Amino acid sequence: MSEYISSAANKLIKEIASLRRRKYRDRLGMFLAEGVRLVEECANAAWPVEICIYTEEAAARERAKAVIERLSATDCCRMVVVSEDIYNKISDTEQPQGIMVVLKKRQFSIEQLLLRQDMLPLLVVLDGVQDPGNAGTIIRTADAAGCSGVIVLKGSADIYAGKTVRATMGSLFHLPVMEDLSPAELIQSLKQSDIKLLATCLQQSDVYYQADFNCPAAIILGNEGQGISPELISAADACLNIPLVGYAESLNVAVAAGVILYEAVRQRATL
Amino acid sequence: MSEYISSAANKLIKEIASLRRRKYRDRLGMFLAEGVRLVEECANAAWPVEICIYTEEAAARERAKAVIERLSATDCCRMVVVSEDIYNKISDTEQPQGIMVVLKKRQFSIEQLLLRQDMLPLLVVLDGVQDPGNAGTIIRTADAAGCSGVIVLKGSADIYAGKTVRATMGSLFHLPVMEDLSPAELIQSLKQSDIKLLATCLQQSDVYYQADFNCPAAIILGNEGQGISPELISAADACLNIPLVGYAESLNVAVAAGVILYEAVRQRATL
Repeated sequence: MSEYISSAANKLIKEIASLRRRKYRDRLGMFLAEGVRLVEECANAAWPVEICIYTEEAAARERAKAVIERLSATDCCRMVVVSEDIYNKISDTEQPQGIMVVLKKRQFSIEQLLLRQDMLPLLVVLDGVQDPGNAGTIIRTADAAGCSGVIVLKGSADIYAGKTVRATMGSLFHLPVMEDLSPAELIQSLKQSDIKLLATCLQQSDVYYQADFNCPAAIILGNEGQGISPELISAADACLNIPLVGYAESLNVAVAAGVILYEAVRQRATL
Repeated sequence: MSEYISSAANKLIKEIASLRRRKYRDRLGMFLAEGVRLVEECANAAWPVEICIYTEEAAARERAKAVIERLSATDCCRMVVVSEDIYNKISDTEQPQGIMVVLKKRQFSIEQLLLRQDMLPLLVVLDGVQDPGNAGTIIRTADAAGCSGVIVLKGSADIYAGKTVRATMGSLFHLPVMEDLSPAELIQSLKQSDIKLLATCLQQSDVYYQADFNCPAAIILGNEGQGISPELISAADACLNIPLVGYAESLNVAVAAGVILYEAVRQRATL
């Protein structure tokens, strides 16, 4: 059963619109995922959907219609139809597709991140990555490379921001994520679990492809301008650099993540 | 000598503002680079600057002042001071820094792309990459990996768009770029120069790290949604894929470029 909400002043609509801001996402423990592809990924991953908001125009299109039917068939998802006018008011995208879902954030423990027994643990740690597009692309890349999970340290981009969620292309729903750790908490958790801390640095470090990735490892990626915090550099088992052969002073952090994670994939596959 | 322009209706100001649009960049053969860092990179690379536009506020800041003095000392650069109000009108960025330069586009030949004798040629080909941020990040990554040059096929993003130029982080000024080729022209040029065409594909292809990069090679990167055009896939010496170990359906195209280009760097360094 769908309900129709016709007023932008409706309490639920205002609450959903507030989720575009981090303050309210943090307070309510909820976030938004917009667009038919992301909603599909969410349904595929069986991440429970609290509310699905859509327009009649969207529901008339084949793909959106199919996923709306899937969500309606679950007991726990509230289905809300709004006008295009109201939808565009709560949308966070430039080209709204007329369908979004409200989801509860999840918080995983380090033990849950390491649950998969079929592979050597490979974690990605975001230490102050600021750009939402970079953070989302790193999560997508970590998923592609078969990582066990992602740890987001305090001071990094909010991985539940609209732009981040979209940049993950749905990988946020597939990969366990642990948020809001301090560097000290990270160091303690990883040492206890015998996971090697590999920091990415520009200087005084080893070339990444000479490192040995055939061990449980966490790859730390730092802030776009400042790099990794000194506390983590000191605690790292190794600092790795990607050689800059030409004139560029650095690599984009999501590209750097891809280069290092896929060296781990290569080494582990060709062991 | 600087000249001061106080009217937004001034012909030069209107011409500069028009360069935010591809149509006028193509017509005039010029483009803009904004922000103190890009202007510095441009001066470092000795790419001739036609016009430098800046505000008095910017010129009062140390870094901008230094690069303004460098450009003033060259004979060929016209120096134009404008009010913040006018600057913000012609600026293409969200947080204008009060300094930009107007540059002539350059077009290199395939022979010029292969001039460097100290290395095996490694080229990057953009075949329909649409997102300006992706195109710019690929050029930055190609520079970092020591590529010989970049070839941009018809139908790709304009590499001289503001967002692309910024995403290259100055690498556009360091790497020779050849534009507007058709697939047929590319195939002919590369075959004549004995350069292997390596296409990146999702299916029916070899794992990229099993390919041999110790030969003159061009890596083709395709459109974000459609991939590489069938004509190039048929003509390619090999199709390479990056294994997707997790649930992600694909990688961001700039991340894919980094993974493959750095496998070439690794193989060539560890020969």
